[in-house]
Amino acid sequence: MTTAGELFSHHEDTLRRALAAIRERTYWSAYDESLKAYGQDGPAGGRSAAEGKTAFDACLGKPFPLDQSATDGEVPGERSPYGFDLGVTYPHADVDGLLDAAQQAIPLWRDTGPDARTGVVLEILSRINARSHEVAQAVMHTSGQGYAMAFQAGGPHAQDRALEAVTYAYSEMTRQASEAEWEKPQGRRPPQRMLKRFTVVPRGVALVIGCNTFPTWNSYPGLFASLVTGNAVVVKPHPGAVLPLAITVAVARDVLRETGFSAELITLAAENPGEGLAKQLAVRPEVRLIDYTGSTAFGNWLSHNAHQAVVFTEMAGVNPVVVDSTDDYQGMLANLAFSLSLYSGQMCTTPQNLLVPREGITADGRHRSVDELAADLAAAVDGLLGDDARAVALLGAVVNETVLKRLENAPALGRTVLESRSIAHPEFPDAVVRTPTILLVDEQDHETYLQECFGPVSFMVTTDNTGDSIKLLRTSVQQHGAITAAVYSTDESVIRATEDAAIEAGVALSCNLTDAVYVNQSAAFSDFHATGANPAANSALTDAAYVASRFRIVQSRRHLPTAAPASD
Amino acid sequence: MTTAGELFSHHEDTLRRALAAIRERTYWSAYDESLKAYGQDGPAGGRSAAEGKTAFDACLGKPFPLDQSATDGEVPGERSPYGFDLGVTYPHADVDGLLDAAQQAIPLWRDTGPDARTGVVLEILSRINARSHEVAQAVMHTSGQGYAMAFQAGGPHAQDRALEAVTYAYSEMTRQASEAEWEKPQGRRPPQRMLKRFTVVPRGVALVIGCNTFPTWNSYPGLFASLVTGNAVVVKPHPGAVLPLAITVAVARDVLRETGFSAELITLAAENPGEGLAKQLAVRPEVRLIDYTGSTAFGNWLSHNAHQAVVFTEMAGVNPVVVDSTDDYQGMLANLAFSLSLYSGQMCTTPQNLLVPREGITADGRHRSVDELAADLAAAVDGLLGDDARAVALLGAVVNETVLKRLENAPALGRTVLESRSIAHPEFPDAVVRTPTILLVDEQDHETYLQECFGPVSFMVTTDNTGDSIKLLRTSVQQHGAITAAVYSTDESVIRATEDAAIEAGVALSCNLTDAVYVNQSAAFSDFHATGANPAANSALTDAAYVASRFRIVQSRRHLPTAAPASD
Repeated sequence: MTTAGELFSHHEDTLRRALAAIRERTYWSAYDESLKAYGQDGPAGGRSAAEGKTAFDACLGKPFPLDQSATDGEVPGERSPYGFDLGVTYPHADVDGLLDAAQQAIPLWRDTGPDARTGVVLEILSRINARSHEVAQAVMHTSGQGYAMAFQAGGPHAQDRALEAVTYAYSEMTRQASEAEWEKPQGRRPPQRMLKRFTVVPRGVALVIGCNTFPTWNSYPGLFASLVTGNAVVVKPHPGAVLPLAITVAVARDVLRETGFSAELITLAAENPGEGLAKQLAVRPEVRLIDYTGSTAFGNWLSHNAHQAVVFTEMAGVNPVVVDSTDDYQGMLANLAFSLSLYSGQMCTTPQNLLVPREGITADGRHRSVDELAADLAAAVDGLLGDDARAVALLGAVVNETVLKRLENAPALGRTVLESRSIAHPEFPDAVVRTPTILLVDEQDHETYLQECFGPVSFMVTTDNTGDSIKLLRTSVQQHGAITAAVYSTDESVIRATEDAAIEAGVALSCNLTDAVYVNQSAAFSDFHATGANPAANSALTDAAYVASRFRIVQSRRHLPTAAPASD
Repeated sequence: MTTAGELFSHHEDTLRRALAAIRERTYWSAYDESLKAYGQDGPAGGRSAAEGKTAFDACLGKPFPLDQSATDGEVPGERSPYGFDLGVTYPHADVDGLLDAAQQAIPLWRDTGPDARTGVVLEILSRINARSHEVAQAVMHTSGQGYAMAFQAGGPHAQDRALEAVTYAYSEMTRQASEAEWEKPQGRRPPQRMLKRFTVVPRGVALVIGCNTFPTWNSYPGLFASLVTGNAVVVKPHPGAVLPLAITVAVARDVLRETGFSAELITLAAENPGEGLAKQLAVRPEVRLIDYTGSTAFGNWLSHNAHQAVVFTEMAGVNPVVVDSTDDYQGMLANLAFSLSLYSGQMCTTPQNLLVPREGITADGRHRSVDELAADLAAAVDGLLGDDARAVALLGAVVNETVLKRLENAPALGRTVLESRSIAHPEFPDAVVRTPTILLVDEQDHETYLQECFGPVSFMVTTDNTGDSIKLLRTSVQQHGAITAAVYSTDESVIRATEDAAIEAGVALSCNLTDAVYVNQSAAFSDFHATGANPAANSALTDAAYVASRFRIVQSRRHLPTAAPASD
């Protein structure tokens, strides 16, 4: 049996590097994002793309092997957005038994301490990393993401974000001495002397409620931050995206068991259709931490009802882009076209509202009317998605019926400047693939564009002028939330004013992105995802505020002899 | 005008030392706790005891000088628990105007950055420290504490706790670079390069709701942590303890104004009797942080209603002491007698339930029955409080009618083993001074001892055996909360078992205190006050979890040229 201490030593270099990274926030990544890096001969090792596919295929059409102790039936699995049933079934958890087993498992896990827990968690991440291609298949066929994105965002990038949160947690758990001798001078009398021990104590059971579109990326930071701080974790996946988290839970259980801990420290709580298991779990007294990604309605319900828990939520938002002027028109159009198309706009980071002065913008020194800009952006999207094979790789599939319906109803919302079209997937004939639509609206049409229209629908919103756009950026983020914001301008004073508005509203800003960095992508260990300062999320996914309340410090103190004992 | 930057340099050594202290948690203190250290010739400088008294007397009988902009009347002031009206009046704030002015003041304070804000806040603390004797008078004559305690707990100890929270906040605000160049390799192509700026952004307006017994000590950590992280602070004092916080606010406003910031960053919101101002302020959308010390009922109301804010609460608890055995019987009795008597048991840290095996304990190798132990403890209290002058200094005065009523009704709750008696105060004839009472109850009498009986009332609770006492410690803390717990035993296995129970329940434990350290005292920079892990408080008053969510990080990023520019 490998010990947790050995695993800590084994992974300590990675941890030390990560500790530097969260301070410096320059470029660093622990897990290779290249699809070709994996497999027997690749620098990252692990399973190759072909091996990952084989492992995925072997999962299909049968019960997923999870040996959780408290099980009372089976739950049917997912249908791929690419048009076929996975045919996997999952154990259905008996809630009382699940929570009881979780609680029983905590003391040993708590008592082993921060270093040992961190060793175990880094080993889990390392094993998941080796299976990134398998996880990618599972993410692709539950979220509808294209394969490359499912691999990167669902694999190494999600693992990096997990490591980032774990690193903050390690830093916070170890920021004070675990033992201290306190000696208080008493003038001429002997000093008072006390021995004090400080123990990191978890909150209890942590509930992670997954989402359909990013089952791993959005769940990993909270899941691993809770686990490494000593809590037991119950993972309630979205019914449409169970498999990626089932694999995650299975890997984690293996490592926990191998290192002498109870596998019940992490369990899957898959649910039957319409069961409402998240609601049931969320108000259980054993549950002291909740991480949730999804609708604002349920996020608010959690905050208003799960008083016994600390609740972290990522919910709806309306991401704005101020378009004022550019000296790289093609770069701007290409960048925006890519951002709108990536995963069919089904990202919490996709721009929704392009705020454009009614009189038009200046691009490469020339005036462009709103109609010209709209036509040029539409052309850029068409160009990007002109080749079907490339288009489906970028767009992926529409994740579910709700998004499809929203897209179908979109034309009624404004003047269509870019029509959505259907693309046949060369490999999966039943996949629902759609290109994004752009609708022209005016800033007066608040009810249209000031609510999240999740999916491949964006609005070009005409405003009085750029000052007005900046004001709208601020107020829309303050009132309706946003995970991202962007500005295009050749005028530094406009950029400064937008930065000020972004700071006021509490949203991360990307300025003049014209190259291969996109507003909807954030880099672990450098960019913060979300701020926690506007209604779209009450935390950044990985910072100190996100991890510090996942544990508490409990001290014990006693007198020491008033004079230090003589040395031997 | 002194600049904030100059103040940072001036106080930087203190900050650096404090940063080491929160890591090491050995003995350290920034502010001298000796009453004699202050005054022209003392090592701590500032105002002497006599000068503090003069300054306090000069406050009495007139409006307190606060030049807050949004004022709409006057609020009557406090009556001293020592039996006279202070005759001070305070401005009544116009809530809309107050919050508006607070919000207007934030941007400049935010933009000056963590170092400058820390410089200003350390200067405020330094000025308050110089006025510790004046604050001590104000604390004494609002809380009823004896003068020495009012000085130490209300002065230097409160200032140390404030500095501790500020130091954690500084550490968290500065833990990541404020600017980073991100350079991602792209194989043979030039690397992607981005410039990223990270800005610490406050949450908004912070509301501090003070309590009657520790107006400064319980308010300072949240107040100064919120201020240093860039928020504006509205201080809503307890109607019975306004003056100590009015002085604090006035000093802070002076320093803010002198350094070029708006004084409206900190304001006093004194209320008329029965006004319910805390409730009104707590649900205002501008208010994003709330720190509260007081009843469980109102603390829960805040958590359930102030959804727009992060709410930190310290509420009721029942502090247990497991009495198993001792090899220093006199030391134990003296230590417990002091803990029960200090400030008439009106501390959130005072032991309430002494858990004693029905068959008695072993002390100095001899068996003592419960009756013997009760009589010996009663005698120790009587001995401690035998001299009236010494007794009133230790006991202080009963803070208000509610506590007095509770004490008067106590005899009905159990068998009296120590009667409370009235003591005439040699200096203040109208002061209500009472010695503590101890009642004998059985562990079956849950309804009696499993609720907080705040004031000079403690219970000796007989249990089946020490194992049972330890179990009762755990369950009572889990269900009803506690800020402190203690154990007396000569058996290391009993201590270990109590430590395990304290860790499970999430309460700080003091083992075998027989010397001049008391369970109801915690040392800043070493002991954590409260854990946040049981119902008595949802946070420790000063740790990273307490400060990290008082601000957010907002980033702005832009491309850098793909090749680094040549140097000049």
